[in-house]
Amino acid sequence: MPKIVDPEARRRDVAEAVFRVVARDGFASASLRNVADEAGLAIGSVRHYCGSHEQLMAIAFDALNDSFTARFMPHVGKVETTEPRSPERQALVEAMLAEFLPLDEQRTREIVVWLEFSIAARGDSRYRPYVRRISSGMRMIVRRILDGSRDAGQLAGDIDLDEETDRLAALIDGLALTAVTTPEAIPPERTMEVLRAHLGTLLR
Amino acid sequence: MPKIVDPEARRRDVAEAVFRVVARDGFASASLRNVADEAGLAIGSVRHYCGSHEQLMAIAFDALNDSFTARFMPHVGKVETTEPRSPERQALVEAMLAEFLPLDEQRTREIVVWLEFSIAARGDSRYRPYVRRISSGMRMIVRRILDGSRDAGQLAGDIDLDEETDRLAALIDGLALTAVTTPEAIPPERTMEVLRAHLGTLLR
Repeated sequence: MPKIVDPEARRRDVAEAVFRVVARDGFASASLRNVADEAGLAIGSVRHYCGSHEQLMAIAFDALNDSFTARFMPHVGKVETTEPRSPERQALVEAMLAEFLPLDEQRTREIVVWLEFSIAARGDSRYRPYVRRISSGMRMIVRRILDGSRDAGQLAGDIDLDEETDRLAALIDGLALTAVTTPEAIPPERTMEVLRAHLGTLLR
Repeated sequence: MPKIVDPEARRRDVAEAVFRVVARDGFASASLRNVADEAGLAIGSVRHYCGSHEQLMAIAFDALNDSFTARFMPHVGKVETTEPRSPERQALVEAMLAEFLPLDEQRTREIVVWLEFSIAARGDSRYRPYVRRISSGMRMIVRRILDGSRDAGQLAGDIDLDEETDRLAALIDGLALTAVTTPEAIPPERTMEVLRAHLGTLLR
């Protein structure tokens, strides 16, 4: 019997290996050779399922985006069907935005990989569309949360939603950046307190 | 006549070359060889004035910290001797914090280098003390500005200064990060508007 390999599953395994290499050793270390070693595969097998280094990185970017998205989906429906101005809705909004903070191992690794990808894409235009897609997905969620809060009567009427989206998205990115690069300045659990305080100034 | 070389000037030149290589090609590319090529020096000359690769990076971190500090010094005295609650004081506070935003070529390059250094130091404990020093210097300035505004009667009395320091520092870091990695999401000039709006909610 020939060995049956599910190409999708293989690509997911390889993307996972890219995440581990990038989180541990940086974007520049994610060569086909290192990723194959990390995944415990022959380099030819990685090439067979993931193509060139460039295609491999595209697969990893897609997997990162898919993973962010999958973590949000359970929240979206819930927050939109919850009583406006209720403590439950407030808690759901906090939990949703906390998906962008390094509060557990998975989120920490994804944030580190996102930072490595974002910085690397600055100097390599091939990767910029992927970084833009993740960034605009995050901002779309922040905007949707603020729009929903306005519709639920929880925002002051004269709030500039474009500006508040930029401010809240930047606050979350900055908290995440500090918590992973200098946790002695803002430990991960502190990021949640600061986010909650910020939401307290926006929502009523 | 032997050629006279000022060792301090040579180290500054080499640190500048590290900045250019890191901003263009990333932290991992700042080998002694690449930095020597960038500086137009023989590798032996770089080794003579800057020691090993580790010492070279220490010199670059110090130069980055010195450059941040030098940009702040002119503001510090001014803001502390300006009329409380005056538009001049407000403008000085904004200008001081804008030193952390990528509003011109020098600031953009320094922010990119700071990000590259911060991400790289995550995986290499030798560099962590340098990153910590830059991070705590930035937070000290933010805290000092908030303390000064409180003393000048410009902050609401019940503000939690620790929390507001964390919030303002994270906002600035997040704005800077977005402006250099996805400028189509928040262009550099927009960062200043968002910072100004945030200060507007804190200062009166």
